[in-house]
Amino acid sequence: MKKKTVLILMLFVLIGTPLSLFAETEAAVDQLQANLDTVWVLLAAFLVFFMQAGFAMVEAGFTRAKNASNIIMKNMMDFAIGTIAFFAVGFGIMFGQDMHGLIGTSGFLNPNNLDLGLNIPMEVFIIFQTVFAATAATIVSGAMAERTRFAAYIAYSAVISLIIYPVVGHWVWGGGWLAQLGFVDFAGSTVVHSVGGWAALIGAYMLGPRIGKYEKDGKVNVIPGHNIVLGALGVFILWFGWFGFNPGSLLAAEGALGRIAMTTNLAAAAGACAVMMITWVRNGKPDVSLTLNGALGGLVAVTAGCAAVSMWGAIAIGIIAGFVIVFGIEFIDRKLKIDDPVGAIGVHGLCGATGTLLVGIFAVEGGLLYGGGINLLWAQLIGVWAVALWTIAATIVLFSIVQAVIGLRVDNEDEELGLDHGEHATQAYADFVMKVQDVRH
Amino acid sequence: MKKKTVLILMLFVLIGTPLSLFAETEAAVDQLQANLDTVWVLLAAFLVFFMQAGFAMVEAGFTRAKNASNIIMKNMMDFAIGTIAFFAVGFGIMFGQDMHGLIGTSGFLNPNNLDLGLNIPMEVFIIFQTVFAATAATIVSGAMAERTRFAAYIAYSAVISLIIYPVVGHWVWGGGWLAQLGFVDFAGSTVVHSVGGWAALIGAYMLGPRIGKYEKDGKVNVIPGHNIVLGALGVFILWFGWFGFNPGSLLAAEGALGRIAMTTNLAAAAGACAVMMITWVRNGKPDVSLTLNGALGGLVAVTAGCAAVSMWGAIAIGIIAGFVIVFGIEFIDRKLKIDDPVGAIGVHGLCGATGTLLVGIFAVEGGLLYGGGINLLWAQLIGVWAVALWTIAATIVLFSIVQAVIGLRVDNEDEELGLDHGEHATQAYADFVMKVQDVRH
Amino acid sequence: MKKKTVLILMLFVLIGTPLSLFAETEAAVDQLQANLDTVWVLLAAFLVFFMQAGFAMVEAGFTRAKNASNIIMKNMMDFAIGTIAFFAVGFGIMFGQDMHGLIGTSGFLNPNNLDLGLNIPMEVFIIFQTVFAATAATIVSGAMAERTRFAAYIAYSAVISLIIYPVVGHWVWGGGWLAQLGFVDFAGSTVVHSVGGWAALIGAYMLGPRIGKYEKDGKVNVIPGHNIVLGALGVFILWFGWFGFNPGSLLAAEGALGRIAMTTNLAAAAGACAVMMITWVRNGKPDVSLTLNGALGGLVAVTAGCAAVSMWGAIAIGIIAGFVIVFGIEFIDRKLKIDDPVGAIGVHGLCGATGTLLVGIFAVEGGLLYGGGINLLWAQLIGVWAVALWTIAATIVLFSIVQAVIGLRVDNEDEELGLDHGEHATQAYADFVMKVQDVRH
Repeated sequence: MKKKTVLILMLFVLIGTPLSLFAETEAAVDQLQANLDTVWVLLAAFLVFFMQAGFAMVEAGFTRAKNASNIIMKNMMDFAIGTIAFFAVGFGIMFGQDMHGLIGTSGFLNPNNLDLGLNIPMEVFIIFQTVFAATAATIVSGAMAERTRFAAYIAYSAVISLIIYPVVGHWVWGGGWLAQLGFVDFAGSTVVHSVGGWAALIGAYMLGPRIGKYEKDGKVNVIPGHNIVLGALGVFILWFGWFGFNPGSLLAAEGALGRIAMTTNLAAAAGACAVMMITWVRNGKPDVSLTLNGALGGLVAVTAGCAAVSMWGAIAIGIIAGFVIVFGIEFIDRKLKIDDPVGAIGVHGLCGATGTLLVGIFAVEGGLLYGGGINLLWAQLIGVWAVALWTIAATIVLFSIVQAVIGLRVDNEDEELGLDHGEHATQAYADFVMKVQDVRH
Repeated sequence: MKKKTVLILMLFVLIGTPLSLFAETEAAVDQLQANLDTVWVLLAAFLVFFMQAGFAMVEAGFTRAKNASNIIMKNMMDFAIGTIAFFAVGFGIMFGQDMHGLIGTSGFLNPNNLDLGLNIPMEVFIIFQTVFAATAATIVSGAMAERTRFAAYIAYSAVISLIIYPVVGHWVWGGGWLAQLGFVDFAGSTVVHSVGGWAALIGAYMLGPRIGKYEKDGKVNVIPGHNIVLGALGVFILWFGWFGFNPGSLLAAEGALGRIAMTTNLAAAAGACAVMMITWVRNGKPDVSLTLNGALGGLVAVTAGCAAVSMWGAIAIGIIAGFVIVFGIEFIDRKLKIDDPVGAIGVHGLCGATGTLLVGIFAVEGGLLYGGGINLLWAQLIGVWAVALWTIAATIVLFSIVQAVIGLRVDNEDEELGLDHGEHATQAYADFVMKVQDVRH
Repeated sequence: MKKKTVLILMLFVLIGTPLSLFAETEAAVDQLQANLDTVWVLLAAFLVFFMQAGFAMVEAGFTRAKNASNIIMKNMMDFAIGTIAFFAVGFGIMFGQDMHGLIGTSGFLNPNNLDLGLNIPMEVFIIFQTVFAATAATIVSGAMAERTRFAAYIAYSAVISLIIYPVVGHWVWGGGWLAQLGFVDFAGSTVVHSVGGWAALIGAYMLGPRIGKYEKDGKVNVIPGHNIVLGALGVFILWFGWFGFNPGSLLAAEGALGRIAMTTNLAAAAGACAVMMITWVRNGKPDVSLTLNGALGGLVAVTAGCAAVSMWGAIAIGIIAGFVIVFGIEFIDRKLKIDDPVGAIGVHGLCGATGTLLVGIFAVEGGLLYGGGINLLWAQLIGVWAVALWTIAATIVLFSIVQAVIGLRVDNEDEELGLDHGEHATQAYADFVMKVQDVRH
């Protein structure tokens, strides 16, 4: 070998060694970030799962004791059924191969075989999406409480997880037409909450009010919940879980998480403060259950824009949500006379829509207040309306079929004795003396 | 110095520099992965700790109000005593220097001084193992509820954390004879749950049934729990905690976590769905408390194989667990006439054993269904039986000694008035009018 | 170009390439550690947030049903108001530009613009500090339960988050004079818990006892809580949240977390065991609610030294806290005749102070027992006293103003009917028959 060849070979070794070592290290660093993302997204998914307990406590606490077992059974089963329905079908509709921006068409039965080019393993993404789907489903449970046939609820619950929610999810998060339009819904004010809220609206309307809620002379009765402490526990659990819901939606473990956690928390706090003040001024006393709903309203409203708005923007969104809660729930209850025992339509439907629109105003990039013009707000408006129309249409069809095939509502005797007795032959509080008629088996 | 020497020195520098830099970076990356593993395993441990709250709510909710303070006191104290007993002695038996594959023999009093060659600090590993040990202990509390002397329970609780559980743990996870045999129990269907379940079986059997449970003419009475909503909250908390229990058992923050979280969730959902359907068909109405137990049964059953089975395998395991729950609990209650107020023997003993065996069938590598032959199933069978025999033998000895020295059971008057009164001079619900005799102090 | 120049250039390339690659990788690794720290600190903050639910359940469970809605409303609102007050003002006082070691003076309204030179984004640090501030605020709620005007509590709650707590925080964690003195309070036995405890002391003292608590002939009545199961759930939630509180205070994801989690857990367990034994020996029966408080006392006490003491040191601290709980709460209740319905002064004030002092004895580096001499103990003593004096003085002024402007206490009729009725026109348990007079609206 000549000296020159030796020198060139040496050069290759000398430059190649660090380069190959560097490539190896770089791959190790990338793998580590993927592992960190995996841990973060999983933990966020677990927190969102835990929101199911929050919904169960809120819904049970804010309704009557005679229906408490039925409520928690509905909450347990919409998650269980939703898990399997979304795994087998829903995920494929939401994230499968896009068809005309409307629907996904692949990945059924084994969605973990799809390749979405994510930084995290498919299983991590699927479980995160599963707990979101189940949240949309469970919102309806409260609005239809205390009078719905259990079988009807189960049927509804399967269909929303199989089709109704995944279609909206595809439009916004699966690369569908709303995503292409520039519609912003970071963590699901519209995709998750307003879908649940509009389904709740249709469900509660088609069911009709609980016996005794509205009297012939126009009087509107308040039917108090049976355990405000459990209701409050539910709200704390939901707030806690929302720290998975919103920051988790970044799907990555990065510095931006801090801002999302802050805006989420500030909006919730502002919502609670606003409702406390409004009810204090209007009624002379601060209202406990509305204030609890105020925190939830703030959370729902900031969910769309939690990554896009400033700290004070989040506070403003929370305050606006507080007004929506007080006047929206009153409007639904007293003017529309739609009987929503836990206020789900106001909290999830109205605050979800409001919060999504407010992104068009408060987004630091593109928002009206920051000189972004009308484009974003317009996209938000289209998105909110399109999702509302689809959900309302789909649930009208769904509940009509359920009404015809199964029947939506229990008979009057079961409603009066309680669904625990009529639907499950059980009772929630066997050792306590209750005010309502007591049914022992 | 000659030119040649200079060149060789230069070469050393040129190659040595990147190599040493690389070694440094590699060490930093390894340290980072260790830090990530630390965070993950700790958070998983915290979730498993929180399962104590779940057990407390399930056990309190599914038993009578007059014993509720006693139940939660037992749950609090088995964790507190277990923490210290396992730290001082149990951990050394489980992970200390192996003796004949049967028992560990070092690391007592200061287990953090042991060197197990782990990627994570010893303290992280110890707290993870501590919350697992406490889970095994607390399972028994529900099966022995409403009639056990508090002092007897405390004595039992110390001994299971000191010896009984750690011995099994050594066999399977401490490098003992079952580990060497190829027995697979990823997160403890057998090690944790069936140990708790068999101890519960012996405890409930030796105690005898609660007054009024079985009548002379053969009639079996249902004694309803006093708060189904709290029971359901407990189940949600347990499900939430199981996301620490199963994925945490990987002891590392890697992509495989996603699959484990998915199989865990699918099995739980399938268990709940299966029990809902079975009870609906059999009784005409879906049973609430059995369905809640169905979710737990699915979780217990998939715990052994959560890292080894496919998604649909997990669903199958959950469905099978559902059948075991319905028919197993009925068999124990009606045929064996062993009074287990919360169904712990069925949920943890039967589903734990079943799930462990099913690994031999559904494991993607080595399972019967995947062409793996009989070897794995055989190892699983040996493991399940060996652990059952040891636990049953050890708890017979233990409870016999406790019976002789302290007495297992409270007297009839205390049982009828409630253990809150007799054992703790308190009451859980001072402001409520109760159906059972009311005792003010 | 000469051969020599070529050689030198080549050398630059050959050495420069690995160096620049190394710098790039090093930056990537540092960023990754920052991302991991972000995830860890956020999750810890979420756990600490969840402690609010724990406080709500403990305080509601250990007081009477007629005040339960009021209690949970106070817990919700002190967090909501505290969040906004601390964001807008408190954080700047705590961590803004130091003035004479006494107070911070910058970062108001937009604290996220401050540069504290942290490894994690400011937003992450702010939310972590926010949930700590809210913990200090909420401690007082229980001690002032069942008789405080809601408006008075709201006013107090704002001021403690705006000023009182942040000043102490600045002294110890914001680089103030106690930090410079060598005072050690790792996670806030003094900064958080004793501030809450001393404020609770002054609040409960200035309010006076509940009607019927102390009789003229010197008899002290026990007013039992209305839901011991919820109280226990609260303790489990607090214990769970403490795993964020103490290990989270490291503000970094490192191996040392394991030790902190272990000492935290061991002290809680030891505290519960100690109280169980002490009450068993003294009263003949183990006391449930005191034992629950024993776990909390151990947690509060180890909070200052969780990163500084050994495992057995933590157990010792827990046991000492157990004695403080039993005898301290009795002393406050029976000798001082200060009516603290949930024992908050004993748990947070006395155990907080005791635990902080014990760092001076048990700290492995600098503690008296480890040959560190008197210096650390002396610094601890000064810190404990200074914080107590400031908090007591500030809350005397605060509550005096509130007394004059709003009035601290509800009138007797409202107290007897319950604050749910008088302050919020609601009731917590509408469907249950209660022993206290029932008020329907």
